Amino acid sequence: MAIIVQKYGGSSVGTPEKIKNVAKTVVSRVENGDSLVVVVSAMGDTTDDLIALSKKITDTPDKRELDALLSTGEMMSCALLAMAIKDLGYDAVSYTAYQIGIKTSGQYGKSLICDINGEKIKKSLDEGKVVIAAGFQGINDKGDITTLGRGGSDTSAVAIAVKLKGSCEIYTDVDGIYSVDPRKYKDAKKLDEIDYEEMLELSSLGAQVMHSRSIELAQKYNIPVYVGLSNSDIRGTVIKGVDSMNLESKPVTGLATSDEDAAITLTNIDNDINIISNLFEKIAEKRVNVDMISQTAPVSGKVNISFTVPKIDLKDCLTILKSYFNEKTKVDIDENITKFSVVGIGMKTTSGVVAKMLKLFKENNIGVKMITTSEIRITCAIKQEDKMKTINLVAKEFNL
Amino acid sequence: MAIIVQKYGGSSVGTPEKIKNVAKTVVSRVENGDSLVVVVSAMGDTTDDLIALSKKITDTPDKRELDALLSTGEMMSCALLAMAIKDLGYDAVSYTAYQIGIKTSGQYGKSLICDINGEKIKKSLDEGKVVIAAGFQGINDKGDITTLGRGGSDTSAVAIAVKLKGSCEIYTDVDGIYSVDPRKYKDAKKLDEIDYEEMLELSSLGAQVMHSRSIELAQKYNIPVYVGLSNSDIRGTVIKGVDSMNLESKPVTGLATSDEDAAITLTNIDNDINIISNLFEKIAEKRVNVDMISQTAPVSGKVNISFTVPKIDLKDCLTILKSYFNEKTKVDIDENITKFSVVGIGMKTTSGVVAKMLKLFKENNIGVKMITTSEIRITCAIKQEDKMKTINLVAKEFNL
Repeated sequence: MAIIVQKYGGSSVGTPEKIKNVAKTVVSRVENGDSLVVVVSAMGDTTDDLIALSKKITDTPDKRELDALLSTGEMMSCALLAMAIKDLGYDAVSYTAYQIGIKTSGQYGKSLICDINGEKIKKSLDEGKVVIAAGFQGINDKGDITTLGRGGSDTSAVAIAVKLKGSCEIYTDVDGIYSVDPRKYKDAKKLDEIDYEEMLELSSLGAQVMHSRSIELAQKYNIPVYVGLSNSDIRGTVIKGVDSMNLESKPVTGLATSDEDAAITLTNIDNDINIISNLFEKIAEKRVNVDMISQTAPVSGKVNISFTVPKIDLKDCLTILKSYFNEKTKVDIDENITKFSVVGIGMKTTSGVVAKMLKLFKENNIGVKMITTSEIRITCAIKQEDKMKTINLVAKEFNL
Repeated sequence: MAIIVQKYGGSSVGTPEKIKNVAKTVVSRVENGDSLVVVVSAMGDTTDDLIALSKKITDTPDKRELDALLSTGEMMSCALLAMAIKDLGYDAVSYTAYQIGIKTSGQYGKSLICDINGEKIKKSLDEGKVVIAAGFQGINDKGDITTLGRGGSDTSAVAIAVKLKGSCEIYTDVDGIYSVDPRKYKDAKKLDEIDYEEMLELSSLGAQVMHSRSIELAQKYNIPVYVGLSNSDIRGTVIKGVDSMNLESKPVTGLATSDEDAAITLTNIDNDINIISNLFEKIAEKRVNVDMISQTAPVSGKVNISFTVPKIDLKDCLTILKSYFNEKTKVDIDENITKFSVVGIGMKTTSGVVAKMLKLFKENNIGVKMITTSEIRITCAIKQEDKMKTINLVAKEFNL
C-alpha cells in the first residue's frame, strides 16, 4: 500500500464541479489500493479576493492577521473536497494546520515548515480515510497561524510526503515541465524527467511552475515529484535526482530568459575586497537579488565590476552606489538586456557547451554583454531585441 | 479595569466599512479604560453563502465537514476586525476556537461549550490587546471543529464573559427587547430591563432576538447581558435577574404570539396513564415540540386531551395517533389557532392575571379554545382572526 501525496492547485478546485471531479480522481486512486493524502489550495482566486478584502480595511494589513485571514481559503476547499469524497461513498477527513501540527518558523507570509504530526495523518490513513490537508498554512511556536508564501501548498505537499515517506504528485494547469517556455518557442519539448538542480535553476530563472522551496525539500529528502495535469492521459514530468553520468543525458536540458533585470557596470574602482564586499552586503540588506557578478582582472590597482539587479530595485541600488563611490567612478546602467540561460546537469560531464554557444552567437551576430557560468548553468546578458532569435538558435542547436 | 465582552452580529460586520465602524466603537471603549474581548459573527450572509456552496457539492453535506467549512466565516471577520483596530493604532489579536481552547461537546452543528482557556485571553488583555474571538465555533474532544448552531455567537460571548467574570454586551440590528413585537403593535414599549426567565419564555415563544442557550448560561452564572444597537445613543435592554418582589415591577412584562402551531384534541380516550405517556414519548422521539397539553377530569374512565404541535410536524403526529387509537377515538385538528402568551415574573407575586385576561376576552367576545399557565406565563389558544384585536386589548390593559 503506497502512500501518495497529491496536491491540487487553485484552478483545479476553482468550482464545486471541479472539486467533484478531483474527488472522482482521488477515489479512482483509492480503488487502486493506494493511501491518499490530498493537499488543496484555495478555490480559484480566493486568496486574491481575500487580499483585496483586507485592502478595503487598510492599505497595510497587519501581517499576523493577514495570514489568519488567508488561511481560511484552504480550510474551505479542504472541507468541500472531503464532503465530495464522502458523497461518493468513501471515507475522508479534512485537517487544518492546527489539527495535523504543521509547525512553522520564520516570518508571517513566508514561513518555513519545521515539522508535521505524521502520526495523526497515518492513523487516519490506517482507518481507511482519505486525508485532506490544508496547504499553504502552518502554526508557529506562538500558536499563530502563518502562511508559507505564494505557491506554498507545493511545499506543504512535499513536506507531508517526506514525513510519510510517500511519493508526491503536483497537479496544476500545465501539463509538465518544458525545455523552453512553449509561448516563446513553439517546438519546445516536454521533459519526461528533470533533475532537482535543473528545476531549481529554471525556477530561479523565471519558470514559475513550482514553489522553489518545494523542490529544495524534495531534493534534500530525495522524494520524486510528478508535475502534470489532473484528470488527463497526458504524461507530465518527474522531478528527481538524475544521474549526470547517464550516457543518454543531453548536456542542456532547458533554457530560460528574463527581461526583468538591468545590468550595472562600475568602471575604474579600487581593487579593495573590503569595499567591494561591503557594497554587496549593503545591497543584500535591501533584499535585492543580485546576479551575474563579474569582475575584471586588476589594471594598476583598478577593476571593473558588472552585475545585474531586478529593475524594480534599481533605484535603491543607485542610492547605495552613490553613497559608496566618488565622481571618478563611472556607473553604467543598461536596462535593455535579456538574461539568457541554459541549464543542464549534463554540463558537469560535457565540456564545450560555452564554446559551442559563443560560436553560435558570433556566427549569428548576437552580442554578449556579460557571461557567467556555474557547474550546471550558463547565463549570458544579450540585447533584448536578440531574444527570440537566440531562443530559436539555441533550442535547435541543443535539441530542446 | 472592567472586562467587557462585546458581540457583534453578522449585519454589524457586513462590509469592510461596517467593520471599520465597529473598530472605532471598540477603540472608544478602550480609551475609557476598559479591557475588551470582541466576539464577531461571520460577515453578513457569509454563513448562508457557505451553506449554499456546500449544497453545490452534495445535498447532504457531511456534518463534520460542514462545521469545518462554516467556521471559516467567523475566522475571516475576526482577522479583518483585528486589522481594522490595529490600523487605528491600538493593539489587537484575533483568536480562533483552537487558539483559545473553546472546548465543546455534543453533536456537530449544535455543540455545547464545555470550557474556555480564559488564561490565554487574560494574558493578551494584560498586554493591552483587544482580543477578537471567533464566535459560533469550538473544538470537541476529538480535535474536530464544531459549531454551536444558529445564533451561537451570542453563547460564545456569554461563555467568555462567564469565564473572565466580565459583563456582556450583544450588539444586533434591533435596539432592544420590546414588550410586544413592534411590527404587530405600534405602541410597544422597549424594556429597560427584563428577567432571564421572561426572556427565555419570550424566546421560546418566537421572539428570536438572542440564542436561548446564551440566556440560560447568563442566568446560571448571573451575568447581566446588554442587548442593543451598536454605535447608537439609543438605550437598549439589560437582561438580568430581576427581583420579582420589586413593588414597581409590573405583573406582565411582554406578550408574544405564534401562528405556527395546530391544536389536536382527542375525545373519549381511556384514562390510562401508560397509554397517554407512551403517546407523548413517541411524539417526542420525532423531536416534535408539543406544547399546551391539557387533560380534562375523567368521566366514566374516559378523558379528553388537547395539545398543540408545530404545523410542519402535524403529518408525523397523525401517523403516530393512528397507530395508537381505534376508530372510536375522535381526533380533531384545528390549524386556525394563534398561541397568545403573556410573560412576567411579576405573576409570581401578583394574582388575578388570568382572571383579568379572561374577563377582557369575555367582554370583547374573544373565544379561548385552550389555556395553560406556568408560574410566569399564561398561554391561550385563540382564533387567528382575533389575534390583532387581542394584542391591542392586552397590551393596553397591562401597559406593555
